[in-house]
Amino acid sequence: MGRGAPPTRSIAELGEFGFLARLLRRLPVAPGTVVGPGQDCAVVRCGGRDCLLTVDALVEDVHFDARWLSPRQVGRKSFLVNASDVAAMGGQPRFCVVSLGVPAEYAARQLSALEDGIVAAARDCGAAVVGGNLTRARTLFISITLLAEAPRRRVTRQGACPGDRIYVTGTLGDAALAVHELRRGRRRPAAQLVRRFAEPPARLRAGRYLVESGLVSAMIDVSDGLLQDLGHICAQSRVGARIDAERIPVSAAYRRVCATDRTLALSGGEDYELLCTLPERSVRNLERDIRQLGCPLTCIGEITSGRRVRLMGPDGGELRVGEAGYDHFRQPPR
Amino acid sequence: MGRGAPPTRSIAELGEFGFLARLLRRLPVAPGTVVGPGQDCAVVRCGGRDCLLTVDALVEDVHFDARWLSPRQVGRKSFLVNASDVAAMGGQPRFCVVSLGVPAEYAARQLSALEDGIVAAARDCGAAVVGGNLTRARTLFISITLLAEAPRRRVTRQGACPGDRIYVTGTLGDAALAVHELRRGRRRPAAQLVRRFAEPPARLRAGRYLVESGLVSAMIDVSDGLLQDLGHICAQSRVGARIDAERIPVSAAYRRVCATDRTLALSGGEDYELLCTLPERSVRNLERDIRQLGCPLTCIGEITSGRRVRLMGPDGGELRVGEAGYDHFRQPPR
Repeated sequence: MGRGAPPTRSIAELGEFGFLARLLRRLPVAPGTVVGPGQDCAVVRCGGRDCLLTVDALVEDVHFDARWLSPRQVGRKSFLVNASDVAAMGGQPRFCVVSLGVPAEYAARQLSALEDGIVAAARDCGAAVVGGNLTRARTLFISITLLAEAPRRRVTRQGACPGDRIYVTGTLGDAALAVHELRRGRRRPAAQLVRRFAEPPARLRAGRYLVESGLVSAMIDVSDGLLQDLGHICAQSRVGARIDAERIPVSAAYRRVCATDRTLALSGGEDYELLCTLPERSVRNLERDIRQLGCPLTCIGEITSGRRVRLMGPDGGELRVGEAGYDHFRQPPR
Repeated sequence: MGRGAPPTRSIAELGEFGFLARLLRRLPVAPGTVVGPGQDCAVVRCGGRDCLLTVDALVEDVHFDARWLSPRQVGRKSFLVNASDVAAMGGQPRFCVVSLGVPAEYAARQLSALEDGIVAAARDCGAAVVGGNLTRARTLFISITLLAEAPRRRVTRQGACPGDRIYVTGTLGDAALAVHELRRGRRRPAAQLVRRFAEPPARLRAGRYLVESGLVSAMIDVSDGLLQDLGHICAQSRVGARIDAERIPVSAAYRRVCATDRTLALSGGEDYELLCTLPERSVRNLERDIRQLGCPLTCIGEITSGRRVRLMGPDGGELRVGEAGYDHFRQPPR
């Protein structure tokens, strides 16, 4: 790649997803790679069985502000955002390695607390930290790679079909609202909102059930905003979607601040809920077994044959979709 | 950890290895973990077989200066430093995931070249890039996690015994000398030196042979300087070592600049050669099969029962050991 690209084009201009899309087209497919790049996790054949492999990083001043999260919370969150990717493929986290970049003046006590957060979150999810790397860096970064057991079935972003129902776990928008309030520096936002930013839910149980039951046709975790992540499912499945704005599940805390405004729930990002599609014939089975998930699940719309994601208002008219979602390279630090 | 540590102690004061040692003592051992943290790779049981898992990161202005390495070289090197850890455990790299932190103004063309470097180095080593993550960061960082096939035998840093011979592959000091010359801003150092800094040798073939043959008792890759990495073998094996300064293998290019000074070969770091120990009874077998390694192998000393690493001069007297090796947190940027 790069041939033909003017030398001055920066990642900011191209955007994270534009760049990634160009990159993916160049990657050779290797033997043993069951599912390559472009999904929440890669699936690789390892010792005769499939494993999931995924990596994610948190960077200070990009993903969080040190005034908002304690080192321990930063550690927990770094693990949980990875676990969320594993949940989206129905896997079970097993082992992780941690790559830390730390400013020289960072206190050893803080770093220990950060590590404690990672170790505790891993244990809570049934995984263990088995190795790592520590290096000096100007800004704190935590990059975690997770190796997980793959489920017997495989669900990616690619299986959605027109007519499939679109479901989402939990509620959306709380984490983005917390960040919005923290950045405006107003009085500290409600504890529930901050907790949702600090502690991604990592829907491992729900993800495993949804995949193992064979009910869902496509799944992704909502990390960059519902509309953007639904857009990934649509692009990879070559379909469109229709979402009913009124059905987007939001918390009481969200409603208290935003009333009927669903912008942050649609595009804010950092929800780490699961977004899945399932054929209409599976809906009854899903709703029968909904207790297995350990969290609420809400139908928010339907997959369509057009290639667009359309947002419908309460009167049945189409609403204009604002920002598509979060792109690290195109938006100011949170 | 952290209890009892004064709140003001920074990682710089504690040092990278001091901090890591304290961290390792706190990590729980998880089921399925065959070899936990503290080695070049973790060994985990995965699908009924053992796999190696390792992570390493390069950070701009800590590990390299953008004036010294092209983006493609940075990409290649990021992969190869990981492959070197796999070589030290005798493994075969299979899959990797890449975590990139990139400044917003970084050119898309540069990032593509960097990715090309990673992909090409992976292919050269028999591995594939199967996933990754891209985020904005103030300074460029590249963190790569490698999943590798484990050999049937297991060699760690822990098996060295008094009387074992100490061997090292290739030559030492060229990479550190290149950095030394580049930092002094003198005329561009010899191409061979710069190549050794840009392109770690990743002794995969030698590592596999040394482990699979059952000859070696302990092994490590020399990334932080011979004395420091030998120190890790000694500490973990609870032994000491005696090294003959005159036997340290150096290149002709190194000798031209440094004459008889072996400081950089002993403590400079970034060699990515293999350092191993083997019982005296295995020496003849090793020297018979030396062609299998694909690189030179030199005996530089012997494991002793004392706990110290001693450096002997040509007259048989002990030399004073200067800097122990490279610690990111205690030394200025390279």
